[in-house]
Amino acid sequence: MKKNVIVGQSGGPTAVINASLYGVVYEALNREDSFGAVYGMINGIEGFLAGHYMDMEPLERSGELELIKTTPGSYLGSCRYKLPEDLDDPVYPELMEKLNALNIGYFFYIGGNDSMDTVSKLSRYAAKTGSDIKFIGIPKTIDNDLVETDHTPGFGSAAKFIASTVREITLDASVYDNKKSVTIVEIMGRHAGWLTAASALARKFEGDNPVLIYLPEAAFDQEAFLQKVEEALEQTPNLVVCISEGIHDKDGTFICEFASDVGVDAFGHKMLAGSGKYLENLIKERLGIKVRSVELNVSQRCSSTMLSGTDQKEAIASGAFGVKCALEGETGKMIAFKRIQDKPYTIDYVTTDVNHVCNREKTVPAEWITREGTDVGDAFIDYAKPLIQGEVHVPMEEGVPMFAYRRTV
Amino acid sequence: MKKNVIVGQSGGPTAVINASLYGVVYEALNREDSFGAVYGMINGIEGFLAGHYMDMEPLERSGELELIKTTPGSYLGSCRYKLPEDLDDPVYPELMEKLNALNIGYFFYIGGNDSMDTVSKLSRYAAKTGSDIKFIGIPKTIDNDLVETDHTPGFGSAAKFIASTVREITLDASVYDNKKSVTIVEIMGRHAGWLTAASALARKFEGDNPVLIYLPEAAFDQEAFLQKVEEALEQTPNLVVCISEGIHDKDGTFICEFASDVGVDAFGHKMLAGSGKYLENLIKERLGIKVRSVELNVSQRCSSTMLSGTDQKEAIASGAFGVKCALEGETGKMIAFKRIQDKPYTIDYVTTDVNHVCNREKTVPAEWITREGTDVGDAFIDYAKPLIQGEVHVPMEEGVPMFAYRRTV
Repeated sequence: MKKNVIVGQSGGPTAVINASLYGVVYEALNREDSFGAVYGMINGIEGFLAGHYMDMEPLERSGELELIKTTPGSYLGSCRYKLPEDLDDPVYPELMEKLNALNIGYFFYIGGNDSMDTVSKLSRYAAKTGSDIKFIGIPKTIDNDLVETDHTPGFGSAAKFIASTVREITLDASVYDNKKSVTIVEIMGRHAGWLTAASALARKFEGDNPVLIYLPEAAFDQEAFLQKVEEALEQTPNLVVCISEGIHDKDGTFICEFASDVGVDAFGHKMLAGSGKYLENLIKERLGIKVRSVELNVSQRCSSTMLSGTDQKEAIASGAFGVKCALEGETGKMIAFKRIQDKPYTIDYVTTDVNHVCNREKTVPAEWITREGTDVGDAFIDYAKPLIQGEVHVPMEEGVPMFAYRRTV
Repeated sequence: MKKNVIVGQSGGPTAVINASLYGVVYEALNREDSFGAVYGMINGIEGFLAGHYMDMEPLERSGELELIKTTPGSYLGSCRYKLPEDLDDPVYPELMEKLNALNIGYFFYIGGNDSMDTVSKLSRYAAKTGSDIKFIGIPKTIDNDLVETDHTPGFGSAAKFIASTVREITLDASVYDNKKSVTIVEIMGRHAGWLTAASALARKFEGDNPVLIYLPEAAFDQEAFLQKVEEALEQTPNLVVCISEGIHDKDGTFICEFASDVGVDAFGHKMLAGSGKYLENLIKERLGIKVRSVELNVSQRCSSTMLSGTDQKEAIASGAFGVKCALEGETGKMIAFKRIQDKPYTIDYVTTDVNHVCNREKTVPAEWITREGTDVGDAFIDYAKPLIQGEVHVPMEEGVPMFAYRRTV
């Protein structure tokens, strides 16, 4: 009897996490000689433990599966459920029982660090108990912070969105160009500055905005920052500065923490101002210059307007490659990208031991950041540029993007 | 001797203010039997008074003019310069002298309320002094608050951006759908709720998010709001609420002012939290529910990703129509749209007395807002839907949108 397939999504959404889902489901449905049914877990393993899953095959027949390819967010729903460290915990036999009841032979989990931790634990539990279910992790995160892979699906589209939006904000900032002004753009990334670094791709010419870029990989000094801003304003009267939400000083204190030290709202809560807001106030206070801050917010991970063709293609391919590897008997692995060269951009799809991936974090290499910590160098540009290439047409309905969504039962 | 043309942009940018510029310039350059040179004021009349202008003809030859059509922001730069009320002020003869020195016969000003005030004053001064320069206003504002016109160029693209982004945020919010959560989206519009109302176009089915929509046209009651949120959460566990930045209570106090009453930052400044941030804290405090707020910010007026084909076409046509009207001798007029019907959507281009437009404001009609002030009705949908139809291809370069920009001299 052919074994069935189950796939789940976990962690925060990205623009292409559903493209990876498409890759797994399409590939599995089209190897019907190898697989039985293809199921989707609703809300990851947390939902699956509560009995929530769906048959994916009707989506292919209805055409919904095609639409999933360009739909941001997690079609199957997500969770942030961490399996216990102790493999003797009763949740493990419970989960295996549910998988066996569905005759599952192949388990795919699309996610970041924490999801790879899930794949690691389940594959180790399976090995320990003699189960032959194959567990494969499909990488996804806009943060690009997974080790053992050149980059992660989701990063390219988020980077393209950020570069495009910062280019637009630069236009917006230059409208009244006879007066000095500063626009601070706060970009996602608590510990890794990959997304903030991508703002460098916004530049139309050398010296163009964003003139200053601050990543969490370099210690942030408020006085040095003010001096740099003043210097930069001499050349660029409408200055755009991009910062990671996670910038911190040399002692590791997040810059946003300086703000919440003092501000208290009407309910007595500390005002949770971001780093951008804090620096806006700092510039206003110390330099007396017109200043505003813009937080790019959730659109960084859920906008469909700047899907990178390269990113989408790789997300689909990594899902499909995962299916192929599982069929070949691999388990406890994450699909990874190995870059062959930048120009022309070429990668290989490979597998890597999931135990080497989980609970680690890849940051921007120090040598890719300029000496003063205020910009990224050409090595980053060469690395990132191929990842944002190519446009994807998103189907429209009545003037807005048409997305797939699970109907509530 | 043929008279020359000058065109300027004023006020905040939109996604299609440059499409209007394109319309004026392209039309004027292509009626070379009627016009001499075509100039652009740099930074509106403020820049022009300081001697800043440029010849637009080379842009057509270089191909830059085509690119202007899809470039957001004000290509020529903008200003917020208000001409004095007193027509005896010396700035008027100074300006006329500069216009005459350039042999200007036709003056086009692209902008909103304040810009129409400029057109009004200049045309009245011209009439008073016997000048035969024609002064024509070309409407633009994302806020859609100009009277005497069905709608304004800029609104359609901003509405399309908002509807699309709210649809994406709804997907993002529904990822963990087993827990109740509220996402508040703060949308531009201090006095008029047109843009916030456009979030209704995000819905995929009846009852879909955004379930609650609050405009500044209806008084906002905090207790009623909390009750509505609780009710709505019963049906929609991942609730999206859209609010105008300008919502206020029955006494006219802006909701954001409740926040700034108390919060003080590290520098002793009042924390300028928005209405969304305030309501986020209110829900957290009173309902104890997971809540976040998202400010759509400047992308509402400068994003090129959701250019409405209808909006762009009308922006270009209104610029071109302005040129035609000026040539026919009209002055002191604003180009306006007269809607013939919704289905199929048809408009006429007309002129309206600019004196009737300036310093007035069009808000969303009370009868288009539902009784409890928590949504808009079908009349708004019928009105707004045609304005967001049609997609525009923005040229790309190396993975990001390619925009026109003035090189600094």
